[in-house]
Amino acid sequence: MTAQRVDITLVLRRGLAEDTDGITHNLTMLIRRAVARGDVSPGERLPPSRKLAADLGIARGTVGNAIDTLVAEGLLETRVGAGTFVAEAAACLGRPVANRKRPAFKQEPRRLVSPDIDGPATAKIDFRPCRPSLAEFPLKTWRRSVSFASASLPSPDYGDAKGQLALREAVCDYLRRARGLNTSPNNVIVTNGALHAMHLATTLYLERGSRVVVENPGYPLARQMFENAGAEVLTCPVDEHGLITEELPRKTGKLKFVYVTPSHQFPTGSRLSLARRRALIDWAERCGVLILEDDYDGEFRYDVPPLVPMAAMDNHCVIYFGTFSKTMFPGLRIGFAVGPRSLIDAMAALRTFSEYAPNDLNQRALAHFIENNHYERHIHRMRRVYGEKRAALAKAVDELGVGADLVGIDSGLNAMVRLPEKLRGRTVAAAARKDGVLVPSILRYAASRSIRDDALIVGYAAPAIGEIREGVRSMLRAHAPA
Amino acid sequence: MTAQRVDITLVLRRGLAEDTDGITHNLTMLIRRAVARGDVSPGERLPPSRKLAADLGIARGTVGNAIDTLVAEGLLETRVGAGTFVAEAAACLGRPVANRKRPAFKQEPRRLVSPDIDGPATAKIDFRPCRPSLAEFPLKTWRRSVSFASASLPSPDYGDAKGQLALREAVCDYLRRARGLNTSPNNVIVTNGALHAMHLATTLYLERGSRVVVENPGYPLARQMFENAGAEVLTCPVDEHGLITEELPRKTGKLKFVYVTPSHQFPTGSRLSLARRRALIDWAERCGVLILEDDYDGEFRYDVPPLVPMAAMDNHCVIYFGTFSKTMFPGLRIGFAVGPRSLIDAMAALRTFSEYAPNDLNQRALAHFIENNHYERHIHRMRRVYGEKRAALAKAVDELGVGADLVGIDSGLNAMVRLPEKLRGRTVAAAARKDGVLVPSILRYAASRSIRDDALIVGYAAPAIGEIREGVRSMLRAHAPA
Repeated sequence: MTAQRVDITLVLRRGLAEDTDGITHNLTMLIRRAVARGDVSPGERLPPSRKLAADLGIARGTVGNAIDTLVAEGLLETRVGAGTFVAEAAACLGRPVANRKRPAFKQEPRRLVSPDIDGPATAKIDFRPCRPSLAEFPLKTWRRSVSFASASLPSPDYGDAKGQLALREAVCDYLRRARGLNTSPNNVIVTNGALHAMHLATTLYLERGSRVVVENPGYPLARQMFENAGAEVLTCPVDEHGLITEELPRKTGKLKFVYVTPSHQFPTGSRLSLARRRALIDWAERCGVLILEDDYDGEFRYDVPPLVPMAAMDNHCVIYFGTFSKTMFPGLRIGFAVGPRSLIDAMAALRTFSEYAPNDLNQRALAHFIENNHYERHIHRMRRVYGEKRAALAKAVDELGVGADLVGIDSGLNAMVRLPEKLRGRTVAAAARKDGVLVPSILRYAASRSIRDDALIVGYAAPAIGEIREGVRSMLRAHAPA
Repeated sequence: MTAQRVDITLVLRRGLAEDTDGITHNLTMLIRRAVARGDVSPGERLPPSRKLAADLGIARGTVGNAIDTLVAEGLLETRVGAGTFVAEAAACLGRPVANRKRPAFKQEPRRLVSPDIDGPATAKIDFRPCRPSLAEFPLKTWRRSVSFASASLPSPDYGDAKGQLALREAVCDYLRRARGLNTSPNNVIVTNGALHAMHLATTLYLERGSRVVVENPGYPLARQMFENAGAEVLTCPVDEHGLITEELPRKTGKLKFVYVTPSHQFPTGSRLSLARRRALIDWAERCGVLILEDDYDGEFRYDVPPLVPMAAMDNHCVIYFGTFSKTMFPGLRIGFAVGPRSLIDAMAALRTFSEYAPNDLNQRALAHFIENNHYERHIHRMRRVYGEKRAALAKAVDELGVGADLVGIDSGLNAMVRLPEKLRGRTVAAAARKDGVLVPSILRYAASRSIRDDALIVGYAAPAIGEIREGVRSMLRAHAPA
């Protein structure tokens, strides 16, 4: 305690004047600090709140609120008819608390690379990949499923870490019917999106020094996730038949995962051939490596025959990741993994320790939506919509006659536009950006320098057909023959 | 390829007879395996599906479905008028795939302790702690908030890793008004329950060899989570004023966290005194340790004055965890953390890598529910309901005259019943279980052997008042004076 008398009003007024950190009139904190510093002592009376408010030039209600809080806290006491006093219990505050700008907690957190994600952006036309079109979303039907899901009293339990059985059953039925993947609910875990499923597997298996093979170019966030787990990331090139399996590493020490997008390589759009699928599985079995099969938009094919997931090829070294972010909407945050029972069980145990179980409402609504066939009807409709958009994109690119080509198979929500010899992807992307068109160069997805900057990645799902035409013209017009 | 001719029908019939793993008639897999083994060769014709079905004694539709799947996969081809053939592409399958019972993937996952949680149970009366009463849940009002939340078209974006701004603002307003904790939305992260927030902090800061202090007795799942992260868990005893700060470790090397439940110690129900709060903060600041303040049921007080969270005591070494699992329902899976900006930002970055962001629907509905004052009205009502239940519990314990005492402050959803000298908690709990009453001994929450088995932990929130009376009688009657 200080021996010298201090004018509390003066202290508070100075404090309020200094308060520049955005929390206006944080009187509560200032009084607390004054007590802690000993500017006012236990047993001492505060000025009447009316006077304090007037002297400080703030509303009397603000003062009243601060005092109420501190009374509740036990720092101040109100004696009826006598005013507000610093409580005797406040003596224990003793040592002043320093007004630190940095946390006293000095530990450094685990170093993470900065997440490489596409945030919300305001652009005239947004060709960034993986964004579904929501204009056709069957909102009314979905709301009926949500209403159904919220109709019964909530349970007092925390739920199943693998996800609700009804949803896992609906997912199994759908996979069997639509994707030719036979599995059982015990081999499925419902996750908060496909990334979450990958994160669970990553946390279970990767440690400092582990190695992971990724496609190059590929999905940046997956690569970063493996790096954050301390793994060394090895890259393997892709061509028009997907991952070039001949280029898989020979030395397989500490190799844990190979991460692939076989149904529609991200971002080039190629599909892993049957022969390479076989070769990849052989390699993985030989090396004891787990194949992470990310089927992020395999629901959408237009003129190509379907191919079942690698997970259906009767083996035990594939974990399959699916998502509802593209077929429904990203904010639903539901995906799933299908894999060997022991692996799915370990993921569920880890999930228990991180959040118990997924939330009830979205799971229940989605199960209802799938069971009532709305999901497949929606996919069917979107397949047509996206097919038309893709055709419009191809036509627009072709008509400009700049020698650019749409490549990759006819599926998914993204396509690759191969640029003519003389053009660089980054140059075209930068010019397009000035015209309000967001379209990434293929380099955006490069895991190493070995990628040639000769293509743009065009997400054509979200823009309207007119916007696609306009966007392509903005992108490529300057490079068209005069 | 085998040189010898094989009768495919025979192979399949044998396979179907052997199929004991629950996936009935997995014909698809059997045909695939037969092709992979070379039992049938590329170019070879399969028997007509009608004949195959009859010979195998299964439905023709089952055979048709299997063939459709394999045609889609590219393994079989249907030639119009000629039948179904093994595709030439199947040649690449070459090497037979072994029919392994265990995954080829040989890596061992990170070893996790088995989660110590209370699952769903069927009991006449369930006194296990932390289960809210849902009979009074305002379902209609909540459904209006859900309906509001689902009224607009979903966004094509993945959302904010810290949670929606509207919900963070609603949480801040609530904390300021109801708990005396002043903070800003930038210092808040919305998580999938409080456990999820703790998991994010744990993943950021703990590594093999780190040390964490926990209360003893305390919350088993938090303790296990720290252990799973490789940390050494040190225990600190509690008494009727909460954590005994004098017993905090002197040696603080590698000490990262101290995990406490100051507003209502779990499971003993005591409250950390102001003097000890000060001492704990001093200790944490001196040692550079982060205080994890878990306020799991602080909303419910009955006859005791409120105390603001430690996080409100003007310092920078506390992270505060709140949850909606007890005030709303566990399946909502929403909680939050309030802490220094740098820490909350790091948690948000880690969240991005594990699941992008929380789901849209529940956040939007909850923000609407809080903003429209339904949340505080519900808490107010439940405070009365729980207060009555607690009084009924106290009366029932008292009336039996066995010398048992209800202890802990008048708050929360759980109370501790201190047993008379001669009785052991586990003995009483085991006898109660036989009568259909689930009630844990205090040992259930012991982090070390040093806890005396002299109490039961009674969750009185969920059972009805009549059940509470009956349950107490079942529990203690045998021990009443004759």
